[in-house]
Amino acid sequence: MSLPPDSVGIVTPQTRTFGALDLQCGVRLPGFELVYETYGELNANRSNAVLICHALSGSHHAAGYHAETDRRPGWWDVCIGPGKPIDTDRFFVVSLNNLGGCHGSTGPRSNDPATGEPHGPNFPNVTVKDWVRSQAMLADALGIDAFAAVIGGSLGGMQAMQWAIDLPDRIRHALLIACAPKLSAQNIAFNEIARQAILTDPDYRGGEYVKAATNPDRGLMLARMLGHVTYLSDDSMGDRFGRELRSGDIASGHDVEFQVESYLHYQGRSFSRSFDANTYLLMTRALDYFDPAHEYGDDLVAALAVSRCAYLVVSFSTDWRFSPERSEEIVDALVAARRDVVSVSIEASHGHDSFLLPVPRYLAVLSEYLDRVARECGR
Amino acid sequence: MSLPPDSVGIVTPQTRTFGALDLQCGVRLPGFELVYETYGELNANRSNAVLICHALSGSHHAAGYHAETDRRPGWWDVCIGPGKPIDTDRFFVVSLNNLGGCHGSTGPRSNDPATGEPHGPNFPNVTVKDWVRSQAMLADALGIDAFAAVIGGSLGGMQAMQWAIDLPDRIRHALLIACAPKLSAQNIAFNEIARQAILTDPDYRGGEYVKAATNPDRGLMLARMLGHVTYLSDDSMGDRFGRELRSGDIASGHDVEFQVESYLHYQGRSFSRSFDANTYLLMTRALDYFDPAHEYGDDLVAALAVSRCAYLVVSFSTDWRFSPERSEEIVDALVAARRDVVSVSIEASHGHDSFLLPVPRYLAVLSEYLDRVARECGR
Repeated sequence: MSLPPDSVGIVTPQTRTFGALDLQCGVRLPGFELVYETYGELNANRSNAVLICHALSGSHHAAGYHAETDRRPGWWDVCIGPGKPIDTDRFFVVSLNNLGGCHGSTGPRSNDPATGEPHGPNFPNVTVKDWVRSQAMLADALGIDAFAAVIGGSLGGMQAMQWAIDLPDRIRHALLIACAPKLSAQNIAFNEIARQAILTDPDYRGGEYVKAATNPDRGLMLARMLGHVTYLSDDSMGDRFGRELRSGDIASGHDVEFQVESYLHYQGRSFSRSFDANTYLLMTRALDYFDPAHEYGDDLVAALAVSRCAYLVVSFSTDWRFSPERSEEIVDALVAARRDVVSVSIEASHGHDSFLLPVPRYLAVLSEYLDRVARECGR
Repeated sequence: MSLPPDSVGIVTPQTRTFGALDLQCGVRLPGFELVYETYGELNANRSNAVLICHALSGSHHAAGYHAETDRRPGWWDVCIGPGKPIDTDRFFVVSLNNLGGCHGSTGPRSNDPATGEPHGPNFPNVTVKDWVRSQAMLADALGIDAFAAVIGGSLGGMQAMQWAIDLPDRIRHALLIACAPKLSAQNIAFNEIARQAILTDPDYRGGEYVKAATNPDRGLMLARMLGHVTYLSDDSMGDRFGRELRSGDIASGHDVEFQVESYLHYQGRSFSRSFDANTYLLMTRALDYFDPAHEYGDDLVAALAVSRCAYLVVSFSTDWRFSPERSEEIVDALVAARRDVVSVSIEASHGHDSFLLPVPRYLAVLSEYLDRVARECGR
């Protein structure tokens, strides 16, 4: 197989080790590792770096391939590559696995140096603010004073927003895609059902499943199935699956299965084999806790007024998990805070998942906006 | 405690035994029992009977109290009673627990006469069409040739629709509330996640949990939590719970719980103690399979054209499980089939659950419509 010409090609993850980090929960992490990938070249004045922040189940592998035999590229390959919206001919792109993740960065599956055993359920709670600080440590290590842009969808957009507030001197543009200023009660409720599916799975073993040589497959499968249904729109599921039966006949009354069911089973099973349950709990808690306005007297305008970057805010018409109205809350607060903001609502049929898909107007908007960013970097 | 003056008061469930029923799945049930309640008096010409059809987790106990010490009345007490929309001074109201239920009618917990043990997972699949036929057998036993109205919300409305199509001579009005002509792929997906939560609970024991003296509490809890979130609207959850913390502090990182979580845990736990898992599976399958147009060449107009009753179709603005658009599909088909239909969309903030709540305009619409029905009965 030859790789597509607009691919970043074969990429190799790298790892950096860092010293102590005082987490928001009060725990001091004596040290940690982050695994990351970079695409493109850092320019001479180090002004063209872009940080990609991943969402709940993402990883550092955002673009390209790890081997020529890989069946699929990184999770955001539609947006990252030569000539693509996040153009690796112009930008130096940094994509990491967040602290607490399960794709190589220090997290629940890593050994606790104090005990020589996996942290498991004892890994401390990590917040979006903690991620921003750990990402800034990675930027320091890479010699990046300020990012031309911090970009993310969903939970990734929340990290970009927190960057703008917490480190205003180190970010010139924040791209907030399919994002919200905080979760709604309904969002929290869906996360809690997913967590309960994992926590009540007997194979979860109080989180010590690695030691017990088990894995809460059932809980992870249910969590993923639920996530999947809420990331898609009702219409897109209808277009894709309708009420088509995969097997059986209603009249026979046995072994009937709708196509949407087999699809969800497949998605759930493959996720349960590849994702760590304690990381899933940690990531959903970080989502629930995200509330940048809280330390500004619950005033989002006051929170965003401390930022100095420019913003692109993108939402999708059929996203009911983080609806366009939630993006409008951010835009309204940015306008009230007199920030520079471009806001775009994209007609797209695939719900929250649209941010990962090649929707033409979405890619065009990203390209246009990032062209401006690149020209500011002299690229 | 004295009972409210607009209550039907203390009611006593009754049980009837029936002979064989050939189910749609091909299984012959040699006999079965139905438990039911009645409120009000059947008039001399037996023209004022109304049938109440329950939804997924309902029962025969729709109104009144079983004892003076009951803390809560039947599930639709806001609508049924003297002077209420379904006025027991004018109507003879029949409310049963559906075949396959777990509140006294023959179902998975009943003993199979062939083995002397509970049917459990071997209880045959029951469809909405089967329910209509079993309900007609109850009507025969009560001496009711035709119902003045068959009334239901959600899955109950689907039974009323099937009555209109399958037994057009035995129903004069069908009241379809928060209903849909069939489930969407998203609806089926949510049901499937709930089923998987139960089926993958190790205490489900392949459905033989009664024999094993276990109960799939965890699965039922998750199923109920998920149902609950999808029955409420995002806004109503926000109004009720917001992001209020019940305990803990985000900064401490431990034992944090949002109010919406404790509420869902409570709902889930109490449901898991009161509902049978095999019945839950059976009821959600009946929902998934419901598709009255299917035997009319997938033409809903043709299906409804065989009906002769008049219709009231009611939907609620924030119901996203069975949205107003789904009710409009029914209304459009009824108009095309030249049926007599009154259609009302009610502004109500509580999502799908609104059909159980005392929303003033909703109760007024029901009262007005049922006043017409009662006058036709000479009441």
